[in-house]
Amino acid sequence: MAILRGAAIVGQSGGPTAAINATLAGVIRGAVKSICKDEGITALYGMRNGIEGFLEERMIDLGEMFTSKKAPDEAKLAQLALTPAAALGSCRKKLPPLKGNDEYYENLIALFKKYDIRYFFYIGGNDSMDTAAKLGAYTRDHDYEMRIIGLPKTIDNDLVGTDHTPGYGCAAKYVATTLQEIVRDCAVYTVPAVTIVEVMGRDAGWLTAAAALPRVTGGYAPDLVYLPERAFDLDFFLEDVKALMEKKPNIVVAVSEGIRFADGRYVCEEISGGGVDVFGHKALTGTGKALELYVKEKLGCKVRSVELNISQRCASHISSLTDIRESEGVGEAGVVAAIGGTSVCMMAIIREDGDTYKSHFEPLDVLAIANQVKHVPQEFINERGNNVTDECAKYILPFTAGEIYPEYKDGLPVHFVFD
Amino acid sequence: MAILRGAAIVGQSGGPTAAINATLAGVIRGAVKSICKDEGITALYGMRNGIEGFLEERMIDLGEMFTSKKAPDEAKLAQLALTPAAALGSCRKKLPPLKGNDEYYENLIALFKKYDIRYFFYIGGNDSMDTAAKLGAYTRDHDYEMRIIGLPKTIDNDLVGTDHTPGYGCAAKYVATTLQEIVRDCAVYTVPAVTIVEVMGRDAGWLTAAAALPRVTGGYAPDLVYLPERAFDLDFFLEDVKALMEKKPNIVVAVSEGIRFADGRYVCEEISGGGVDVFGHKALTGTGKALELYVKEKLGCKVRSVELNISQRCASHISSLTDIRESEGVGEAGVVAAIGGTSVCMMAIIREDGDTYKSHFEPLDVLAIANQVKHVPQEFINERGNNVTDECAKYILPFTAGEIYPEYKDGLPVHFVFD
Repeated sequence: MAILRGAAIVGQSGGPTAAINATLAGVIRGAVKSICKDEGITALYGMRNGIEGFLEERMIDLGEMFTSKKAPDEAKLAQLALTPAAALGSCRKKLPPLKGNDEYYENLIALFKKYDIRYFFYIGGNDSMDTAAKLGAYTRDHDYEMRIIGLPKTIDNDLVGTDHTPGYGCAAKYVATTLQEIVRDCAVYTVPAVTIVEVMGRDAGWLTAAAALPRVTGGYAPDLVYLPERAFDLDFFLEDVKALMEKKPNIVVAVSEGIRFADGRYVCEEISGGGVDVFGHKALTGTGKALELYVKEKLGCKVRSVELNISQRCASHISSLTDIRESEGVGEAGVVAAIGGTSVCMMAIIREDGDTYKSHFEPLDVLAIANQVKHVPQEFINERGNNVTDECAKYILPFTAGEIYPEYKDGLPVHFVFD
Repeated sequence: MAILRGAAIVGQSGGPTAAINATLAGVIRGAVKSICKDEGITALYGMRNGIEGFLEERMIDLGEMFTSKKAPDEAKLAQLALTPAAALGSCRKKLPPLKGNDEYYENLIALFKKYDIRYFFYIGGNDSMDTAAKLGAYTRDHDYEMRIIGLPKTIDNDLVGTDHTPGYGCAAKYVATTLQEIVRDCAVYTVPAVTIVEVMGRDAGWLTAAAALPRVTGGYAPDLVYLPERAFDLDFFLEDVKALMEKKPNIVVAVSEGIRFADGRYVCEEISGGGVDVFGHKALTGTGKALELYVKEKLGCKVRSVELNISQRCASHISSLTDIRESEGVGEAGVVAAIGGTSVCMMAIIREDGDTYKSHFEPLDVLAIANQVKHVPQEFINERGNNVTDECAKYILPFTAGEIYPEYKDGLPVHFVFD
């Protein structure tokens, strides 16, 4: 295949993760190498706020910024890789259907032509893979040669095709570490108390499952773990909490924000649905808060809820070395694959067989991936539905392995910021 | 002064911190040195769950456990020092008044005599200093010679006498780092949004003030910071948010849980007071949630609140080296002082004059300290009352300096646990 010469562009989309900039660093590394060796890519632009910013031509020249002595500027890349949250800015935008939106897509193609963009890298979740698929179909039908690569990222680990997603390992390490700290904190008093910790994950329970990791490392894990993949039963839940409280005073529960009853209703909507706030609006509390109110009402003991919230996706101060390296790797592998002729693919992480964890990257047809959700398999959840199996924990554990710390200045982590 | 020979006991009380076990490690180091050199202390016991557990004679032999080759077992101490939350267990107990409770105190003295306890170390906040004061008065009046030392700890930094409290530096580092990550996370979208982060501190705003630290390190701090030391004004608040939103889309606000209006009412009670939950109970939301509801009602834009919650006091995975060293130091210095004859004192951290941060430890009369609150001085808050001054941030910054990481196994921190 002939070398395709032209500029490359990279964007970030969807919710941030602690590793999304590691993938950006990988793309920059790969592209700058290509620019310096004159192997195809001639320049690298970064879209500000994803495709939304590109449509307004808000771009920066990343190739220039990250080249030092005719090679990738590794010091800058290392800082970027440990900066949380999409450094280029992000957007939540799904491209319109191809049919009936010719003007929209013509406008996009015109912009690609204007900057001679022949390589398109998009770091994101499901919507980003959908963007890659649509651009792939449109450019193919309109004879504009552009290599399009989707680079996965999501703390939810719910993309199909890839064994796991870049960003999940850091989030899992944060959740497992924080839950272990909370379990220790809750263990200091002898007064009966229930602590309910709400973990992100509307449809997939992968991140909540990570709360159980300390159980297989010899550490301290929550007593009960509930995922959205199994119908939640309030009676079973109360029974389980009561049974545990007969053995010890402090119970810690991890729940996914997305747990639902057997009939499909969200637990948070059902329990908190009756209240109104001071302004007269229906007060929708989170799932953890809803269960807090429920347990308080039923058991009368001390109950509190903790929502891990945004930190799950941006706590880059506690990053998984494995995840950061894989996230960078998937970015650079995407560039190499594109230069080699691959297009309309998502770079996936393939886990190799064997006792020691090992992975490599492979391009997968993006059309087979977009708009699907990978759930935690039922065999990873115990029969009672109140915890994950050891097998599940052991499957997740390698993604959290190894530590990598950001540079600190005056006691605080230094972030890379595009002005 | 003659050497006082006898056993020592140490306990932990009140809310946990990330550094409370570092102070325990310091006490153990000091006591084991004394035991090994036969310099006064003959044994070291640890109370389980503070004075409450001691009354039930629940104790462990720490001296034996932490001695290796006739010296303190430094490997074990290092692990203990980076374990979050009171490893011996804690309690929330204020001793009864001396007057009218002779039987209670006689029982206590009998227990001290039973184990020949002549050194009493109590790690805690205000209530613990009160315990030290009461025991000091009672033993003096009843001719039982026992050296009593209070060792400060609180994330709130609200004890008087000491320049700052052990445990505050770790919590401040966590708050500043997390706020900076949240600011980065919030900056990725172009959609107008307000994020309100609630920080612990009912009466004193020291921990909330730490949110502003990144401003003086060249990092990224929240736009607005509200402490309980200044009356909160809803109209001013709304004006400030609106004014900022005209300049940029993403506003991050840090608020202390304890902010109040000029008339003394808590903001959270006032705003959330009208609602009832699904069980018909008055729904008291946190301060962050209350302001979220208010801003949503008034501005109609995207608003969310984040409660940092328990992690503020137990996130030992991001510890301040300065705080851990000072916390250990205050413990060991307490033992040395007690052996030297000091009693009914709290060991305080004294900040030395000069451009480079330096501190040492001094015993202060515990009676002058107990049951008082040290507030953030008004000159550390700006005129508008919506942020702290640079001077305030620069005062706090040294306590967060330096990093020290726990040992990791299989991707997770290893905690020291007494079985």
